[in-house]
Amino acid sequence: MRVKKYFLQTKKETPSDASLISHKLMIRSCMIKQTSSGIYAWLPLGLKVLKKIENIIREAQNSYGCQEILMPTIQQSEIWKKSGRYNDYGPEMLKFLDRNKKELLYGPTNEELITNIFKDYINSYKDLPKNLYQIQWKFRDEIRPRFGVMRCREFLMKDNYSFDLTIKEAKRSYDNMFKCYLNTFQNMGLRAIPVKAESGAIGGDMSHEFHIVNKSGDTEIIYDKKIDSLKNLTSDNSYQILRNIYAVTREKYNEAECIVNKNDIVVTKGIEVGHIFFFGTKYSSALNAYVLNNQGKRINVQMGSYGIGISRLVAAIIESSHDKNGIIWPKEVAPFDIGLINLNSKDKMLSKISDDLYKLLKQNHKEVLYDDTLESPGAKFANMDLIGIPFQIIVGLKSIKNNELEIKNRKTNIITKVDLNNPSQILKQLN
Amino acid sequence: MRVKKYFLQTKKETPSDASLISHKLMIRSCMIKQTSSGIYAWLPLGLKVLKKIENIIREAQNSYGCQEILMPTIQQSEIWKKSGRYNDYGPEMLKFLDRNKKELLYGPTNEELITNIFKDYINSYKDLPKNLYQIQWKFRDEIRPRFGVMRCREFLMKDNYSFDLTIKEAKRSYDNMFKCYLNTFQNMGLRAIPVKAESGAIGGDMSHEFHIVNKSGDTEIIYDKKIDSLKNLTSDNSYQILRNIYAVTREKYNEAECIVNKNDIVVTKGIEVGHIFFFGTKYSSALNAYVLNNQGKRINVQMGSYGIGISRLVAAIIESSHDKNGIIWPKEVAPFDIGLINLNSKDKMLSKISDDLYKLLKQNHKEVLYDDTLESPGAKFANMDLIGIPFQIIVGLKSIKNNELEIKNRKTNIITKVDLNNPSQILKQLN
Repeated sequence: MRVKKYFLQTKKETPSDASLISHKLMIRSCMIKQTSSGIYAWLPLGLKVLKKIENIIREAQNSYGCQEILMPTIQQSEIWKKSGRYNDYGPEMLKFLDRNKKELLYGPTNEELITNIFKDYINSYKDLPKNLYQIQWKFRDEIRPRFGVMRCREFLMKDNYSFDLTIKEAKRSYDNMFKCYLNTFQNMGLRAIPVKAESGAIGGDMSHEFHIVNKSGDTEIIYDKKIDSLKNLTSDNSYQILRNIYAVTREKYNEAECIVNKNDIVVTKGIEVGHIFFFGTKYSSALNAYVLNNQGKRINVQMGSYGIGISRLVAAIIESSHDKNGIIWPKEVAPFDIGLINLNSKDKMLSKISDDLYKLLKQNHKEVLYDDTLESPGAKFANMDLIGIPFQIIVGLKSIKNNELEIKNRKTNIITKVDLNNPSQILKQLN
Repeated sequence: MRVKKYFLQTKKETPSDASLISHKLMIRSCMIKQTSSGIYAWLPLGLKVLKKIENIIREAQNSYGCQEILMPTIQQSEIWKKSGRYNDYGPEMLKFLDRNKKELLYGPTNEELITNIFKDYINSYKDLPKNLYQIQWKFRDEIRPRFGVMRCREFLMKDNYSFDLTIKEAKRSYDNMFKCYLNTFQNMGLRAIPVKAESGAIGGDMSHEFHIVNKSGDTEIIYDKKIDSLKNLTSDNSYQILRNIYAVTREKYNEAECIVNKNDIVVTKGIEVGHIFFFGTKYSSALNAYVLNNQGKRINVQMGSYGIGISRLVAAIIESSHDKNGIIWPKEVAPFDIGLINLNSKDKMLSKISDDLYKLLKQNHKEVLYDDTLESPGAKFANMDLIGIPFQIIVGLKSIKNNELEIKNRKTNIITKVDLNNPSQILKQLN
């Protein structure tokens, strides 16, 4: 993509209402624009990141046996009355009447709706287990939306729902998702720690939140410091440890019950990026979702639900990966692989070399943002640093004279010189 | 995907409230489920088709220079008051108050919102032209939702918006989208005819609808029969003809003005799948969106908007491609490439052969739905015909004894025998 054509009007000023660094950087880098209080439009650069995260989640869901569906954003109130949750979200649940005076609501979560769908199709234990997920916009009418997409009203979530015959099998589904989440977050370059949590309005008696440790987080988490020494959270060994180690939210913390020595405990802040629940028959009983078991007896299905905040993750990743100059995208979710900077777009030789490089990189399936504008070198550098693409290729007169290109690693700031006429050396530097 | 695990509970009965064949077949084949009046959930099979159509549209948009963004579903009423359209959609526009008593609405279309976004970023003629698109759910509170996803309340649309400095350039953008649409529909195996249309609530003085000729369509269209003799609507020649030939909706028809001989006219029904508009400065004037031209003068941008009904297209394709046994998917949008039928899943040899085939096909990047259930052969055949996958591979004892497989083309019903032990022959038959 050429910057000249791209809808990428970055800003130098920091918006006055933004306190979080991720909020500031997302506005400045033209990723999002607020269109109403707590409601955002995703501009081309922001949407690219959102879609990358979405796809990493989708692939993990598919590989763990979940099937994708898509429920509508708008639900009927009736099913919420049946489940007994009609008032549980209070004024955060956006309710309204349609033209026929029927009460509808913008779904804040979908346990009722999925249970209602499920029961229309699945009648036999032979068709279990099932695990259905969706990636869909939700709405929670926060009284004071703030922190950009970290706490907004219309937000994108992946939510999935497991259905099993027995508690034992349901807990296996829960464990399966626990593992899936460890992998999912790792696949986007993040380290997310599972901690025991309250179930809140979803209900049930087993629940974990997944947290990115970060000073801007709004949840206090308390855990055994052994977790910090685990290098790779997704190994079988780590999974066993994480499943049994002491790790809780502040709400869930009880000094008397805490089995870990005080000196061995970490108390810190986390950004919640995922939350999983096992709630047994809470919804299947209320909404009458059952299957026949092998003796022809009606059994309410055992259910769990599992959420990942996709739009919030974009901000969470920035909170944990930036410097004073801007965003530093993990390569897994970066909007582009490479930023190509022509330091003087009026110079014919530099333009020819840059154009050829652009072509070469695209042929090698790299996503490239090519700054071909007439801005000053300083402005181009600042812009690329702000946007945070993992690698920058700098095409300038000085190095070209030595038949060289400069490749800058955004994270380490290390600049490597490569032979301009050696494509394989160039490509090798970009991995 | 194995049928045994798949969420695919097809139904034999036709739902009583369904009159359109597409509605019946989508319910029976477990593609969609109504969750409220005119509001549907997309089940795994349906969502796969929806996503394929979405991606064909996305690729065409990208290749015609449009950039993807994503606007929220919820908008503020204010901008609709500014544009003067607040009452234009009447009770079809779903409006409601948030907890702070601010009036919001579920967007039925996005001209106001995109104009507001645009003007915050683009200030100079140098940054034009721009063309932004999104694929997002919309809501129109139809008084009598019916015909399944053909006329539902929550629906998926691709909408894009062009911004130009001059009328001449804006008309070029319009023509560019006209061509893009001809290609888009062809890329999904459809023949969509552009006809001059009224602009309705969008406004402006130039507009075309794109129609699939079909007896179940709810729009009468009238056009020069020469169109029916055009083989390929996307050739340069066809484009020139279509841009100038007589073709209108009934609303737009005026006998006195019709230049074509009565005998040379086709009067038929069409399903509207796309609609494009040029409306000049209607929104840019009202919402004060301007750029500075090369003399530093403020110029309101010239705009057009362009819509494709994605969820509706799923139904439209079925209306134009089915038989008495079920759906016949064009291969471009088929949920799977191949249906693999093991006629007797209890038979070890048949199961081994089927499993091996399943593996072979997946290795060759084919999407396969593998019926490994214990259903009867008749039920399996009926199911595959209903679902409408382009090819069926039938693994039965009789042909296996001759070292053969049967491959059935869903559209032609022709069955070809291929050598079981010749993978390349098998794969060749499936293109």
